[in-house]
Amino acid sequence: MTDERAAEELHRLRSSIDNLDAALVHLLAERFRCTQEVGMLKARSGMPPADPTRESYQIKRLRALADESGLDPQFAEKFLALIIDEVIRNHESIKRAGH
Amino acid sequence: MTDERAAEELHRLRSSIDNLDAALVHLLAERFRCTQEVGMLKARSGMPPADPTRESYQIKRLRALADESGLDPQFAEKFLALIIDEVIRNHESIKRAGH
Repeated sequence: MTDERAAEELHRLRSSIDNLDAALVHLLAERFRCTQEVGMLKARSGMPPADPTRESYQIKRLRALADESGLDPQFAEKFLALIIDEVIRNHESIKRAGH
Repeated sequence: MTDERAAEELHRLRSSIDNLDAALVHLLAERFRCTQEVGMLKARSGMPPADPTRESYQIKRLRALADESGLDPQFAEKFLALIIDEVIRNHESIKRAGH
């Protein structure tokens, strides 16, 4: 492959990556709207922010989805841990704010 | 809100979160297909795995997207750092494998 051809191919792949990133960020934003609603609902109803049963269900499910879709399962777990950590901190801040 | 009503509402929100998670995992899997191709292309063409110019472009872009979509920018950066770290390790392993 010539350098020019390689540069073109790299540009094409990066355009796809940029499109996927835009989709990912928008889906993550929508996910956070949902988890914020969950946080407010839990605070209003006196439910605890963390829910180990729900979290273990999510971890198992995401692991299966990652497996099925060809995503590295270790990455999927790191991603999930990042999300869950954020969600718990969000719920705790909503609880502290007394909503 | 009654406990029953709160439980129903929680169930509804969690169904949306589960749908979004499935979409996120599939998009991440597609993203990794692209970055694996980038890794192989770079290894074949003798380009270095990491590309600071591209990464700073991506960080700036994702920050703007996060801002526009209402996603917490700090979370967006942690997410991006996770992705970039994975991509670089992936490129390095492709390079080591001598593709």
